[in-house]
Parts: sequence; structure tokens; C-alpha cells
Amino acid sequence: MRPEKRTTQTVPTPLAKTARRIMSTTPFAPRGDKKTIEEGLALSPKFDDKGLITAVTCDHLTNEVLMVAYMNEEAFAETIATRQAVYFSRSRQKLWRKGEESGHVQKVKYILIDCDQDALVLKVEQIGGACCHVGYRSCFYRSVKDTDALEQAQAEKAYDPAKVYGKK
Amino acid sequence: MRPEKRTTQTVPTPLAKTARRIMSTTPFAPRGDKKTIEEGLALSPKFDDKGLITAVTCDHLTNEVLMVAYMNEEAFAETIATRQAVYFSRSRQKLWRKGEESGHVQKVKYILIDCDQDALVLKVEQIGGACCHVGYRSCFYRSVKDTDALEQAQAEKAYDPAKVYGKK
Repeated sequence: MRPEKRTTQTVPTPLAKTARRIMSTTPFAPRGDKKTIEEGLALSPKFDDKGLITAVTCDHLTNEVLMVAYMNEEAFAETIATRQAVYFSRSRQKLWRKGEESGHVQKVKYILIDCDQDALVLKVEQIGGACCHVGYRSCFYRSVKDTDALEQAQAEKAYDPAKVYGKK
Repeated sequence: MRPEKRTTQTVPTPLAKTARRIMSTTPFAPRGDKKTIEEGLALSPKFDDKGLITAVTCDHLTNEVLMVAYMNEEAFAETIATRQAVYFSRSRQKLWRKGEESGHVQKVKYILIDCDQDALVLKVEQIGGACCHVGYRSCFYRSVKDTDALEQAQAEKAYDPAKVYGKK
């Protein structure tokens, strides 16, 4: 008599269950214990309850923060594979291949991950010299003056969004 | 006959309702329309459905990203007022005055905000020269080698966490 078909092994904890589920659909390593995540060399990114991880994108030469965006598992894996930045647009709820409309793609030089592996830093070459849809080099073109007031930190736009994206 | 007591004005949209609620409890400006948020000089931060905004903390001289954390309205207001970084700890669900245990406080030189006002960049002087609880100068001490592998990006720890935090 043949044994009953076993499709899964016994899973002792919710963490292991989650990790195995992720392994079956993504190329990332499963989450281990705290010490392994913090001190090990396995890539075990933590995606939040919406399936996203925070990505901070910086100019690879100046370190300037250009933008903050989010990736799901698919976006992160595609970014690693293609070396061009792919995010997940929370407003449009779909993959966002940065520059697909504007041509302002981001060539990824390297990617850093933080201690608990729930945030990324991308060091990129920003094609076109500007990343922000408003027209500035960086999305961070204003500084906080007080709790209700900002001041301009980048004086000039780097390009005219109306020309790149069309009048909207 | 006295008119019925009116405690609120007519609120035409959910956005205006939210904005007014925030105004009554925080010092931030209400959210306006897209153009005002993106091109204006009112600080109208957008907190997510958990009441948090992403904060990227960088060394003010080198621009190096030191850490990514989150602030609620109280943490952000206190950071502006005291010029020392205060976050909201998601794991402990309380205000996290960075350095209160280690002494590694962050003196905030300036704060930038992005186009849609849902992410912050803090430029700080990191007292003690290191921000990460694991012991490194920055939390981003490893780089992504492949979808399941990392490599060390910072060779040496800047301090011994066991000495600063005690054996845990």
C-alpha cells in the first residue's frame, strides 16, 4: 500500500509557514532568526502587510536622496535581474518601471539593505538627470521651515514636465 | 428661537474632513489640492493608514543614508521643535527618542520633504558616529549580491553593542 501523498512538511511556527510560502513563489531566502537576519548574508527581505518594502533611491556619485518609493516582491526581483529600478505604484496598484514614460530610467549600480531587512537603498545613475515628476532633480526640493511652512531647497526645475509627460 | 447648535461646518469631501481633524490636533497645515501640496510652501504631511510617515536619515556632511524609520504626528512635531530625531517605534508602538538609551542622539540640521509630502529626509549629525543597534555606522552595512545573497559593505563595526546596550 502506497503512503498517502504528502504535499507539505509539518510547519512548527507561523514564521516558518510564511517563509515557505514566500520561497515557493519568490527567489528570496526565507526569514531566519533575528541574528541570521541581522548578521547573516542571506537576502531575506521583509515585505509589510501590503506586500511592500521601502526603497530609498540615491544618486550613486553624490549620495543625494532622489526619491522614496516601494517595491513588491516582483518589482524587487526584476530590479535585481535587470539592474533598472522597478517599483510598485501604490496609487496605480501595478508595477512601475521607472522612466517607461519619461525615458528617465534609473540604472542601478548597487543595492543596500538594512539590519532587519525591511528597507533598501538603491544607488543609481539617473538618466536625464532628474527623477521627480514635478520637474526637479530630486523629489526632495523643499525643506521644513516650521510645523506649517516649507521653503524652496532646489531653486530650478531640471526639466519641463509638460514637455516630457504632455499637458495633464 | 435660537438656531440649533452647530459644532461643525459642512464638509464637502472626505479629504477636507480629514484635514480639519488633523488641524485640530496637530500644528501641521491641512492637505490642499495636488498642485498646492506639490508646488506650495505649506507643510501638509501625509500620514498613512497607521498614522506614520517614512523618514530617511542621512549624515549631513556625506549624505550617506544612516537609517530608515517612521514618525507619527507627535514624533515629527517634536523633531521639528527640539531639533533632535524622534521616531515612532512600530515594534514597541511608542515614541522613540533616538539615542535615549545609547546616547547616540541625532542632531537635526535640516529636514526635506518630497513632492507629495509623504516622505522625509533628515540631515543629521550622528553623535557617537554610529546609528545602528547592530554596531555599524549605518544600518545599510550589506549589499545585495543576488536574489538570495548579500555581501558585507561595511567591514568593521563602529562600536560594541554589548557595551552600549548591555548583554541582551
